[in-house]
Amino acid sequence: MIGGYAGKILRIDLSRSKILFENLDYQLARRFIGGEGYAAAIMFGEVGPDTGPFDPENRLIFMTGPLTGSTVPCGNKLTVVSRSPLTGIWGEALFSASMGVDLKRAGFDGIVIQGRSESPVYVSINDAKVQINNAERLWGKDIFATFDAIREKSDNGTTMVCIGPAGEKLVKIACIVSDEGRVAGRTGMGAVAGSKNLKAIAVRGTGKIGVADESRLKKIREDAIKTALPNTKAFRDNGTAAGVLAFEKTGNLPLKNWTRGTFPEAAKIDGATMTQTILVKRKACFACPIACGRHVKVAGSPYAMEGPGPEYETMAALGSLCMNSNLESIAKANDICNRLGIDTLSAGGAIAFAMECHEHGLIADSAGVDLEWGNPDAIVKMVELIGKREGLGATLGEGVLSAAHIIGGGSERFAIHAKGLSFPMHNPRKFKSMGVAYATSNRGACHNRGSPFMNERGMLSPELPWNRSYDGLSTEEKGRMTKVYQDVCCAMDSVGVCKFFVFWGRVPLKFLSDSYSAVTGWDMSFDELLRAGERIWLTQRSFNVRMGATQEDDTLPKRFLEESVDEGPVRGQIVELEQMLGEYYRERGLDAVGKPRKEKLFELGLDSVASVLY
Amino acid sequence: MIGGYAGKILRIDLSRSKILFENLDYQLARRFIGGEGYAAAIMFGEVGPDTGPFDPENRLIFMTGPLTGSTVPCGNKLTVVSRSPLTGIWGEALFSASMGVDLKRAGFDGIVIQGRSESPVYVSINDAKVQINNAERLWGKDIFATFDAIREKSDNGTTMVCIGPAGEKLVKIACIVSDEGRVAGRTGMGAVAGSKNLKAIAVRGTGKIGVADESRLKKIREDAIKTALPNTKAFRDNGTAAGVLAFEKTGNLPLKNWTRGTFPEAAKIDGATMTQTILVKRKACFACPIACGRHVKVAGSPYAMEGPGPEYETMAALGSLCMNSNLESIAKANDICNRLGIDTLSAGGAIAFAMECHEHGLIADSAGVDLEWGNPDAIVKMVELIGKREGLGATLGEGVLSAAHIIGGGSERFAIHAKGLSFPMHNPRKFKSMGVAYATSNRGACHNRGSPFMNERGMLSPELPWNRSYDGLSTEEKGRMTKVYQDVCCAMDSVGVCKFFVFWGRVPLKFLSDSYSAVTGWDMSFDELLRAGERIWLTQRSFNVRMGATQEDDTLPKRFLEESVDEGPVRGQIVELEQMLGEYYRERGLDAVGKPRKEKLFELGLDSVASVLY
Repeated sequence: MIGGYAGKILRIDLSRSKILFENLDYQLARRFIGGEGYAAAIMFGEVGPDTGPFDPENRLIFMTGPLTGSTVPCGNKLTVVSRSPLTGIWGEALFSASMGVDLKRAGFDGIVIQGRSESPVYVSINDAKVQINNAERLWGKDIFATFDAIREKSDNGTTMVCIGPAGEKLVKIACIVSDEGRVAGRTGMGAVAGSKNLKAIAVRGTGKIGVADESRLKKIREDAIKTALPNTKAFRDNGTAAGVLAFEKTGNLPLKNWTRGTFPEAAKIDGATMTQTILVKRKACFACPIACGRHVKVAGSPYAMEGPGPEYETMAALGSLCMNSNLESIAKANDICNRLGIDTLSAGGAIAFAMECHEHGLIADSAGVDLEWGNPDAIVKMVELIGKREGLGATLGEGVLSAAHIIGGGSERFAIHAKGLSFPMHNPRKFKSMGVAYATSNRGACHNRGSPFMNERGMLSPELPWNRSYDGLSTEEKGRMTKVYQDVCCAMDSVGVCKFFVFWGRVPLKFLSDSYSAVTGWDMSFDELLRAGERIWLTQRSFNVRMGATQEDDTLPKRFLEESVDEGPVRGQIVELEQMLGEYYRERGLDAVGKPRKEKLFELGLDSVASVLY
Repeated sequence: MIGGYAGKILRIDLSRSKILFENLDYQLARRFIGGEGYAAAIMFGEVGPDTGPFDPENRLIFMTGPLTGSTVPCGNKLTVVSRSPLTGIWGEALFSASMGVDLKRAGFDGIVIQGRSESPVYVSINDAKVQINNAERLWGKDIFATFDAIREKSDNGTTMVCIGPAGEKLVKIACIVSDEGRVAGRTGMGAVAGSKNLKAIAVRGTGKIGVADESRLKKIREDAIKTALPNTKAFRDNGTAAGVLAFEKTGNLPLKNWTRGTFPEAAKIDGATMTQTILVKRKACFACPIACGRHVKVAGSPYAMEGPGPEYETMAALGSLCMNSNLESIAKANDICNRLGIDTLSAGGAIAFAMECHEHGLIADSAGVDLEWGNPDAIVKMVELIGKREGLGATLGEGVLSAAHIIGGGSERFAIHAKGLSFPMHNPRKFKSMGVAYATSNRGACHNRGSPFMNERGMLSPELPWNRSYDGLSTEEKGRMTKVYQDVCCAMDSVGVCKFFVFWGRVPLKFLSDSYSAVTGWDMSFDELLRAGERIWLTQRSFNVRMGATQEDDTLPKRFLEESVDEGPVRGQIVELEQMLGEYYRERGLDAVGKPRKEKLFELGLDSVASVLY
């Protein structure tokens, strides 16, 4: 038996209200694994440069991995893929939505959505019964109200994802949210759903997800959990934001739109403080032994709220990046982002950008919002305006790069992004490898599509070619390291296991190929899996090349290439990108203009990709 | 000698601050004439689907025709061409800017701008001396203030074009304005300039524009003026808005976003009323004997202004389309559009759309503006918000199609557009041929890129294959007629002569080829010129095909295909598009998906276009 895979792809054409069941291509599945890998093969074949992100013919793909729902620890990932309206290139966001597990139980590995409905709809899947339903009455509703309304009409146990008002209004940083409050945040996937008039997907699946070798899987599961649990205790205790204070001490925490080196108030927004003040309970995703999720409550303040609490990236983006140390305001702003459906990272990046523009007198009208650094009210108000596409928020919701073009006045120098995606919350001046990772990630600046700083943090993997850790401040090996870690991440995202569990849990990477082998019954070595990761990465890169991306786009803001901060642990550090990038290009098999070399494509069996590029 | 052509193209790369003089390709010029024709050949060769409208590598082309500045009557046209950010396809706008004449006198047929400057610049051309100048101090200034500031630093006799704050902020309906107040309005050319950080172009030319056969030209000029003057007297007297009242009587005037059939208050916004109330003086473009231009002044009202007055399209768009009969408010709103730099047609279309959304309860927050039909204050306030990209204006400035996607709630049915460009102010229910013209125009809904209603209005041309006028309400011959008139318009725009003079002046069309022959010394028959028009049209169409346009885009809003008005002269009339379109496709040589047939391309010598499409 082939375990892990459901064996069917659901294809929905919203223009023609057509629903098709297609067979999963198992040969493709072995080569592209699943998740973002399988989706990359579909995207490269079906979406060319003449299909704009908001064109009906753009695809919006929801794809599980073969380990999603398999009971492998943290095998819970669902990937959303499309051509991004924010960046114009490869768009992708990953989340631990239970809907992915239910989709598999209903018999589908993924959903490919194309076309545009004439009026708002939501898709419901109840095992093999698939329907396109009127969603006029849901349009305009916030995320959680939408779930409540659909839940009322659905069988017990239905799981869901949806967009909020921001996605409906095509805000370019709009996200897709699951009913547990997990978020597919980056690259504007919510806006693509909005452009298709697709409000939500609700799934109830009651079938079984096959596993080829249950007893082998049981052993793998037990070993992995035993290794990971002690290493992730801090995250269970205090959430992913557990690292805020430590990151400030080491120079990793982003401050004042990346212009400062110390933040004496960091402790106020550290995960431990959250535990002591507003935490109500911990929350775990499907099959997760860690439970880094937070449920928080703020009462009796202007920031009253109850719901999912901020994780590290959010805490930094809406906090230290904007010099805001008011924890309750961050919880409130996070809640508004969740309800309206916008990416907290991009929102924080945009607000920090706006605050710096304000400091330089470039924002004439901020609709009564005082954009002083650190003003918690400004952050809460601005996320609302972004989500509602109103006032200055309409500009910021275009993303920092477009917003800079709109605001002008040289504000592009405050737009901290790669390929149009604003930075995540790890400092490439502290971990130089992350400079290469941000500059070359296929979806724009990303710390999760290549996490070479795991080596710089001293977390070694016996499967990888380094038996020592390299200093974060040195450039040695960083080009090669980035290439390899990108391949690892492509593989890990495609099988559908949480990176957090594996990396921070210090689980040997062979866990991935062993689990894959046990679940599918196909014997796959770690090397073959890594090779698949390389194949996936290059397919995504080739997608971007077709969209016009070149080596000129593999860069970082001047703020990192030429400027530094004058205090703290990374004082004076810049990112020596050029020298690392040369090594990276060689290792990766890219030519001088950044195009994958023909020989490299042939070597990986990507002949059809080569025939399009050459 | 080759008269008419200057013989050089100026190419400016703003990314690299490079200025190049290229030779005009005379062989290309003979086949593509000049203006939008020559620009189409450049665009097809240099801008593919992987170059987005705001990408630095998009081209912004300013191109004159061979008759521009030649002293042929109304030989004064300058065309602006780019990939449109409003529609994603062929973008183009034509105006009678004296800067075009000066450009020729300076020795250039056109300017091709590429790249993006890091900070705001303006280009100055003083005969052969071409400079890229810092424009930091001009950025943010309104249109007329910009001209004043540049004029102060320039030699006497310098003519200019520039963008306003709207173009700087990438408002998608931003225009480019000349220092006489003439406007290249449609398809967002101002936003492309803004995306390149290009504020203005200032030109002083002192050379002579060659004419091969002066005495032949003199005779042609005298005959044409003698014919045209009596036929255009109404426009000299009362401007192009002279037709408002008559159009209301015949059913041509757009009313209440195309949902009404009569407007008792039409006389209040008729050109004759303008003459009697706010007209200060008449204004003529270069070499024009008509002087349809208006200079108006409103004193002592909330709408106080002085400057260029509204022409017909503006009067209808900001007037009857929104049920606004307050002439002074239209003059004021027009003035704001001119100063901030937005297209009055698109602005009026967007405001009418917003008013209809408001009527249906779809606009929650209009920032205190009462969007009741006909409210003059709302129109004045909304054009300001659009131009400044603020509040609801930020949404409307995206154009009606995107605005409908943002506002949602089924509002797409109120978005009256073709290919994303909102309708001009002539009713296709009254002139059925215009339905075909709007649906198939290469730049989206346009009455000037194909004006078959000239036949329906009883204005026959002996050079064209119809010796009688066809009823506007019938569909007979309308497919073929649209095809032929599109070719005529391509030819007329490319030589650089004003359509208004030729069509409404009832000047025989042979005037175009005769003038071209006299000026260039190349003997060109009207048939060869028409053939060039067909070649130009198909090159533009092929450009759009590359961008992903198909037969599905050759359509009209349901409001015209299925709905009508229940009163007035066109009561019950719809546009029977499908039957006319079949005939059109056959005549035009398009296949079932709307792609130019290979044989047709070969027939016109467009082998290189065919090799890209096939």
